[in-house]
Order: sequence, then C-alpha cells, then structure tokens
Amino acid sequence: MKKILLLSTVMAIGIVSVGFHFKNGKADEPIITNRTVTQVAVIVRDIDKAREAWAEVLGVDPPEASVAESHQSRPTRYIGKPSDAKAKLAFFDMGNLQVELIQPLGGKSTWQEFLDKNGEGIHHIAFSVKDIDGMEKKFELQGMPTVQNGGWDGGAYSYIDASASLGCILELLENYR
Amino acid sequence: MKKILLLSTVMAIGIVSVGFHFKNGKADEPIITNRTVTQVAVIVRDIDKAREAWAEVLGVDPPEASVAESHQSRPTRYIGKPSDAKAKLAFFDMGNLQVELIQPLGGKSTWQEFLDKNGEGIHHIAFSVKDIDGMEKKFELQGMPTVQNGGWDGGAYSYIDASASLGCILELLENYR
Repeated sequence: MKKILLLSTVMAIGIVSVGFHFKNGKADEPIITNRTVTQVAVIVRDIDKAREAWAEVLGVDPPEASVAESHQSRPTRYIGKPSDAKAKLAFFDMGNLQVELIQPLGGKSTWQEFLDKNGEGIHHIAFSVKDIDGMEKKFELQGMPTVQNGGWDGGAYSYIDASASLGCILELLENYR
Repeated sequence: MKKILLLSTVMAIGIVSVGFHFKNGKADEPIITNRTVTQVAVIVRDIDKAREAWAEVLGVDPPEASVAESHQSRPTRYIGKPSDAKAKLAFFDMGNLQVELIQPLGGKSTWQEFLDKNGEGIHHIAFSVKDIDGMEKKFELQGMPTVQNGGWDGGAYSYIDASASLGCILELLENYR
C-alpha cells in the first residue's frame, strides 16, 4: 500500500511538472537560442539595378549575383510540395550581418508570393541554427509552419511563416561545414 | 595671353574633375559610411500580442512598450507636413542589433501607410548617423526622399524612402547624447 501511494505521488508530481513545462501547450524553452540576426533580405524586381544602387549608397563594389535553385542535398519544397523555384541572390557585408537581395526567377516560392502581394520590400530576417529539421518542428508546434525549405552544397534553409504571431517571415540557416 | 591660356586650362581641368566626381549626377562618395545595421523594424497590429510572441520564441521577458509621438525638439513631419502620428514601440536586444516592434496608433505616418498597404511586415532597417539633416539631403539628391522625420528628447530619426532603388525604407538615427 505504501509503495502504491509513493508511486502515485511520484506520478502526480511528474504530471504536474510536465503540465507546468508545457502550460497552454507552449514550451518554456526558447526556440531561438542564438538571437544574432545574420541576414536581412530584400525582395527586388531587378537585382542588377538594385545591387548597383546599394553599392553606390554604401560605397562598395557591387557583389556578384548567383542563382539559387533546387539542390539534391535538400530539394526545394514550397508549402509541402516540390518546387522548381529559382532566384538570383546577392549579398552585402554590413559588418554585423548581411543584406541579401533576392530577385525571384519564376517557380512557386515565398519570394514570388511576397513580390506578387507586396511588391519590393523586406522579406525576412535570418538566424543561424543547428538541427534545422528539429527547429522546423518546434516552430510548427507553436503555430509557425515552414512555408519553404531547401538546401545547397553545404547547407540548408527553411522559411518559417511567423506572420500571424511575430509579424514576419524568419529564415533558419544551417551550415554543415 | 599666356595667363588666359593657363586660366582656361585650370578651369577646364576643374570642370572635368567635377564632371568625373558627379558623373551622371551621382556622387562617388558613399552616403552611408557606417554600414552597421542597428535596427530591423516590424510593423504589427497588436504590439502586446507581438511582444509576448517574440519574447516566447526568444526566451526573454517581454520588453516594455513606449509611445512615440511628435516632440518639440524635432516635430514629426510626414511627406513634408506636420503630423500628429503616434506609435507604440518595443525593442528586443538581439546581440548585434535591435528588433523593433511598431504598432501605429493613428495619424498619418509611414507606419500606418505600410500597414494599410502590406499588412504586418518588416518596415525598415536602421543606421546610426551623424548630421542627419545633411544625410537627408544626400539621399534626396540621389532620388531617395525623406518620407517622415521627427525626434525625441535626445535624438532624431528620418525615414528615407529608398523603395524605388534599394527596394525598402531606411531609417537614419542620430543620438545627440
């Protein structure tokens, strides 16, 4: 009898603890542990015009533009479906982070969706993370689904649609090297 | 005759130099000399909901919100006219910069204009500057007009509408203390 009482008590304490930890279904643990913002990205219609203009304002040489497309390491998915979306990218080193310019090049993507809805503008802020798939799940559990993800030779990205709660899209970036 | 020739030559060199310096009406000097991005600002409808959500994702206490309104040191102007615009602000320290949440509280402002046009989203990135009025003129000369400016007890801000060339709005911030 004493053993059963003890067991019940331990179990009750356990349940209450778990309940406190996930009160209202929300974890007490932060999702983002490294708060440093690593990129701010601007969607533009004409990246060549935009990188010239940014370079002039900053007094630097215009960075080369590169093309981002689906990569076998983590094929691009948009709202859960494979996508052949492409974009042209260029990066400015601002000292404490990068300003990224993104010109959508067709295919279904969060980039094209943003351009169609808002025109040019700031699309997301990015964070460096570890275990990007686990991070996606944590955000999903808090009502912030992955709108698009993909990878490149050496890394992975995920766009988290946090519009409804944080007011914007976040990008998670994981470098494997 | 020799003197006139010499004078003409000097003047010609001077004109060519000025021409090179302002080729196509553009200055070779950068406008932004300190490239560090100090703030990224998100326009939200409900700052209390948004600061709770951000605080939870980051695992920090929600920062206090404050009200920004016209201040005698530099009364708020929107598109060249005095404005009684107000907004509620809250700031998160991200280590390398601040994430600023802005809830427009009425009056004509770039904040309300953005919310009406785009809904919630990232409104601007900010830079710390010196001689904010001189900076406004430099941007204006390059086709990037001031859409709104104002100040507070100890500082001044200007929103530069660089949408047409850079794809977004920039904020200049000058602290006088």
